[in-house]
Amino acid sequence: MASAVYEQTFTPFLREIEAEMRAARQEQSEIAPILWQVIDYQFGWDIPPEDSARFRKVTGKKIRPLLMALVAQAVRGDYRHVLPAGVALEFVHNFTLIHDDVMDESPERRHRPAVWTRWGPYQAINAGDGLYALSFLASTRLHRIGTPPAKTVRVVEWLARACLQTAEGQILDMDFETRDTVSTDDYITMIANKTGALIECAAGIGALLSTDDEALIAAYTDFGRRLGIAFQVRDDYLGIWGDKAQTGKSTTSDIREKKKSYPVLAAFERAVPADRASLQAIYRQESLSDADIATVMDILERTGAPALTDQIARSYYDGALERLGWTGADQELIRQYAAFLVRREY
Amino acid sequence: MASAVYEQTFTPFLREIEAEMRAARQEQSEIAPILWQVIDYQFGWDIPPEDSARFRKVTGKKIRPLLMALVAQAVRGDYRHVLPAGVALEFVHNFTLIHDDVMDESPERRHRPAVWTRWGPYQAINAGDGLYALSFLASTRLHRIGTPPAKTVRVVEWLARACLQTAEGQILDMDFETRDTVSTDDYITMIANKTGALIECAAGIGALLSTDDEALIAAYTDFGRRLGIAFQVRDDYLGIWGDKAQTGKSTTSDIREKKKSYPVLAAFERAVPADRASLQAIYRQESLSDADIATVMDILERTGAPALTDQIARSYYDGALERLGWTGADQELIRQYAAFLVRREY
Repeated sequence: MASAVYEQTFTPFLREIEAEMRAARQEQSEIAPILWQVIDYQFGWDIPPEDSARFRKVTGKKIRPLLMALVAQAVRGDYRHVLPAGVALEFVHNFTLIHDDVMDESPERRHRPAVWTRWGPYQAINAGDGLYALSFLASTRLHRIGTPPAKTVRVVEWLARACLQTAEGQILDMDFETRDTVSTDDYITMIANKTGALIECAAGIGALLSTDDEALIAAYTDFGRRLGIAFQVRDDYLGIWGDKAQTGKSTTSDIREKKKSYPVLAAFERAVPADRASLQAIYRQESLSDADIATVMDILERTGAPALTDQIARSYYDGALERLGWTGADQELIRQYAAFLVRREY
Repeated sequence: MASAVYEQTFTPFLREIEAEMRAARQEQSEIAPILWQVIDYQFGWDIPPEDSARFRKVTGKKIRPLLMALVAQAVRGDYRHVLPAGVALEFVHNFTLIHDDVMDESPERRHRPAVWTRWGPYQAINAGDGLYALSFLASTRLHRIGTPPAKTVRVVEWLARACLQTAEGQILDMDFETRDTVSTDDYITMIANKTGALIECAAGIGALLSTDDEALIAAYTDFGRRLGIAFQVRDDYLGIWGDKAQTGKSTTSDIREKKKSYPVLAAFERAVPADRASLQAIYRQESLSDADIATVMDILERTGAPALTDQIARSYYDGALERLGWTGADQELIRQYAAFLVRREY
């Protein structure tokens, strides 16, 4: 989908999400100024409103609250009742980015220095912990807009479980970096947790807050789970073959950091013995030279890793769409957005 | 209070708290084994049940859930209905210990290597994040024991707010380390958040879940706030003049790390000019020698820092007890426990 169409279709949703994010932040009394500087920086709220081009560049795609809003819109014909939960997910997602950048030692995020690069790793850990708490506070705003308390409790439980899964996925991901062999199946388990849990949660909570039909809630949850996996595999693809100007990340950094992303694992599984031996030798090294990176890129091409990666993303994507097995006036927006997530260039 | 009396009085409570902690942990499906190894280690669940002496040494005092249980017992004559919330606080407290040890580079915790010493700082960050999520999951167990959903939502909101304050307190604490001047008032604000928030929350939620009388809830909350401050000032005292064999921490480490704890700040404020100049010179250094530490200890003694520290702890303690301005069969236990917290030797 062209960027202009994207803007036009989703801007009203994104504007409401942004407003709820700011409201959840602004109602807090500020005790430690550094925390609020970090949070404002992370969401681009340090940028003057008139500089909207720069704001758009650093603010993030808000995938989780947008997906939640689209599901709510499809199920109930409105989405404002899910905004506090969507914002909670967006805050959780951003807290994980702040911590992950510390652990991955990634110096940049969204075309700017990462939080730890600017405030140091320890204050980045603290600020992430603060934002984590703000996520749960944001979710309790549901209570104030008339959500039945029993549903709010269910949202909190779901959110906490997704946070736990996200942390477990991140632990597995780091563990994989030091392991000799990781199968593509191990990898799918890892990303189903690290990335998938919050996207699953987004679609599931969008339905939960919009209907009492448990079958419908389960269908949307499963849709989210599959879409989350497709999305991450696509992200891995872009991490190697994407356009740095668009993604804001170096396209060789995933390889340089020896990330066991889907393309690399597929290459390990499919490579001819000589290539597999080369890969093993390279991935056992402490650090990779530019020549090593070039060798890895060549082997990825030779094993057909780009096509394999594209194919697995596509298959989870198709599985997700299958779960959208009902009709509804606004379901088209979900389909458009899902297509955007899995076909996007950045 | 002698240790045997302490054991006898509080053991029934501690046993129920321990059981609820294990239940909240055991119902989780395990995705990343490392997370559960860390959690089991942090709570001493890696130690065989028969080795109860060793277990007691590493398990922690469980101050927050115990205080919550004692308040509930005083207000409603029972405490089992607050256990999930108490466990949530105990989990939050332990997540902060795991992260704080990374940031303070403290190699030991409860007579054993700290989590980051054993699993590395990055997995310690992740495991802390996982335990943070488990805290909120633990709190939603209230729902299952029949707590009215609206009260559970209030507990979650309170817990999240306390987590936010705790993070803000930790940010201030780290910020103080690099600042030239910190007043004792700044310090009280910092600890009221870093340590006080969770203790305030413990007493407040204990009341909230046991009565609808908002005045009573407010009184217990304020009691907790003051007790939390008294407790931390006492902790600072023990950090310098405590017995290493009992506390499990080196008594000079707080000074070596240039911690701006109450005794040091009181000395800065009260020292004669020559001593203040010495302190300033020492605290501006990158690191402190053994001779510097001895000089600081001497100045602390000369300025009467031990007595000043003891006095401020006592004054918050007295203020806390004043708020216990009602009678009740079991209130005596709260008083005994508060006295233990502020007079304890470890």
